Amino acid sequence: MVQFVGVPQMQAWVSEMGPELIIAGLAEQIEQDLLHWRRFDKVARVATHSPVGVIELMPTSDGSLYAFKYVNGHPLNPSRGLQTVTAFGVLSDVNTGYPLLMSEMTVLTALRTAATSAVAARALARTNSRVHALIGTGSQAEFQALAMRTVLGVDTLRAWDTDPAALEKFERNARGLGFEVHVASSAADAVAGADIITTCTADKTNARVLDASMVEPGQHLNAIGGDCPGKTELDVGVLHRADVIAVEYEPQTRVEGEIQQVEPDHPVTALWDVLSGSAPGRLADGHVTLFDSVGFAMEDFSAMKYLRDQVAGTHWVERIDLVAEPDDPKDLFSFAWSPILVS
Amino acid sequence: MVQFVGVPQMQAWVSEMGPELIIAGLAEQIEQDLLHWRRFDKVARVATHSPVGVIELMPTSDGSLYAFKYVNGHPLNPSRGLQTVTAFGVLSDVNTGYPLLMSEMTVLTALRTAATSAVAARALARTNSRVHALIGTGSQAEFQALAMRTVLGVDTLRAWDTDPAALEKFERNARGLGFEVHVASSAADAVAGADIITTCTADKTNARVLDASMVEPGQHLNAIGGDCPGKTELDVGVLHRADVIAVEYEPQTRVEGEIQQVEPDHPVTALWDVLSGSAPGRLADGHVTLFDSVGFAMEDFSAMKYLRDQVAGTHWVERIDLVAEPDDPKDLFSFAWSPILVS
Repeated sequence: MVQFVGVPQMQAWVSEMGPELIIAGLAEQIEQDLLHWRRFDKVARVATHSPVGVIELMPTSDGSLYAFKYVNGHPLNPSRGLQTVTAFGVLSDVNTGYPLLMSEMTVLTALRTAATSAVAARALARTNSRVHALIGTGSQAEFQALAMRTVLGVDTLRAWDTDPAALEKFERNARGLGFEVHVASSAADAVAGADIITTCTADKTNARVLDASMVEPGQHLNAIGGDCPGKTELDVGVLHRADVIAVEYEPQTRVEGEIQQVEPDHPVTALWDVLSGSAPGRLADGHVTLFDSVGFAMEDFSAMKYLRDQVAGTHWVERIDLVAEPDDPKDLFSFAWSPILVS
Repeated sequence: MVQFVGVPQMQAWVSEMGPELIIAGLAEQIEQDLLHWRRFDKVARVATHSPVGVIELMPTSDGSLYAFKYVNGHPLNPSRGLQTVTAFGVLSDVNTGYPLLMSEMTVLTALRTAATSAVAARALARTNSRVHALIGTGSQAEFQALAMRTVLGVDTLRAWDTDPAALEKFERNARGLGFEVHVASSAADAVAGADIITTCTADKTNARVLDASMVEPGQHLNAIGGDCPGKTELDVGVLHRADVIAVEYEPQTRVEGEIQQVEPDHPVTALWDVLSGSAPGRLADGHVTLFDSVGFAMEDFSAMKYLRDQVAGTHWVERIDLVAEPDDPKDLFSFAWSPILVS
């Protein structure tokens, strides 16, 4: 039997633990795993594109556990009442190849993406950061806001979205969470005076939600929405404006990230190198830092490992019968076909 | 909600429909999909290797449906009471990215592998084939025997395995299925006089269960066990002896199949080209034909599509809550976190 965290179990876990505690735990797990970077078997995710979206598989392993996530990205989905991004994942035992845990990951991805953003911001943003601008207030926005508050203490928000309903939804939720919220009149208004800027928009196009004229000295940019070939958010001038561009796994980010817009040798820094101290992050308060986030399999590995440890032996986990277990492992046929049961 | 065919549902489906009818249906579906080869998005599977085994992800899409399978291969598993190969898979809607069906695929993989072998043998073996030799009588053997009987009418078996318990198990099951069975004293004894030879052994090594001196004119070889880098079954002389080597997806088979032992330009023929008549298969009764089977994602796609059509609206399918479905697709946060439910 495989452990199973379905949607109701995930909702119960998040509601009973509280999202802040979970995000803090995930940030810790993600940072610890990033510090063991060389231990992991890394590969760019395998994407299957169609005119309306993408379906991706994201595997990795540390030699002891294996994890993969299935995730889609379909920007038109909300217009038909569906999520842009849904996901599920599996954690397995490398020694036997057997799945240990299957989890919904639509919610868990939002939590781990926010935790990863906070890990990067803690390493790259100015330590006295207090104001967080969000461009794009869809599914991910509240998680991002909570992560920056939980990990960095940032409690003032400036928000903008081209969809008034999404902006109104975010304002309501964020005020309910105790944030001070400025509802901006444009992207430029949102980012003015911000310490940290999160862009998280969904269009599968080369969008320009931010250009270099809007960027102020000292800001840290957390660019989440550009994560597919042909899907970027930042004007290329912003990339030239940045003093440091941090990436998760360079071979994947070169294809999927904001840096697909610049030359293949445009300098970037591995986030894990900044975390471990092997590479410099921010060198001056006036510098502009950019985390070109696309989402990497190791973050899902960390999330599933953390989830497994947290839900073991609780009511937050069920079991599903996914793996055939014949008494004689070489007699799969008699296990599959029991004509006596039929007659 | 996602449709779910777990282990008990799969057992009920196989037992109530009977494995022959399912294998015949799968063979038809696999052949039809192979004939639409150009419609599919194809990629070699993504393998994560460890010293004791491999875990693989196998995605493909025809532009309307997407499927992937998770499958492991751990040759030492039976010694600890576990399956060498376990698997599960998911079928999704390309248009939304949402999963439609999740299924156990340990049993379904055995069924589809057997059906694929029969499709290849129908195209390549002599039409008057009557005797089927099996080297390796583990989990897959009965399925292979049934497929060759169902699709080609082959009802006489000659079996060999180095594990006496596996051989005894196979003899018992095969006699129960109405086969005439000769329990051989060696691999050479098993293949003597056979029309079709199936090799299906599990060692992750360059094994030599068959050499060229054992191969007779007119035989068709169905080589299943060599399916990983460093994991082959046939002496290289057998490859030089074959007049035709048919493969599923050449870029994958060059790395994983028996042909990893020969030069990268050693001539091979795509199975789908033989099926469509674009390439010749067997040209003479005295020729030796070889299907260098490794298992390709399209076969799993076909199997899941067939399964979905067969189980729709029946007691062979359940539902699991794997995909978050918030009322407002942009308000994932309120869906995930319901503090009112807690207090």
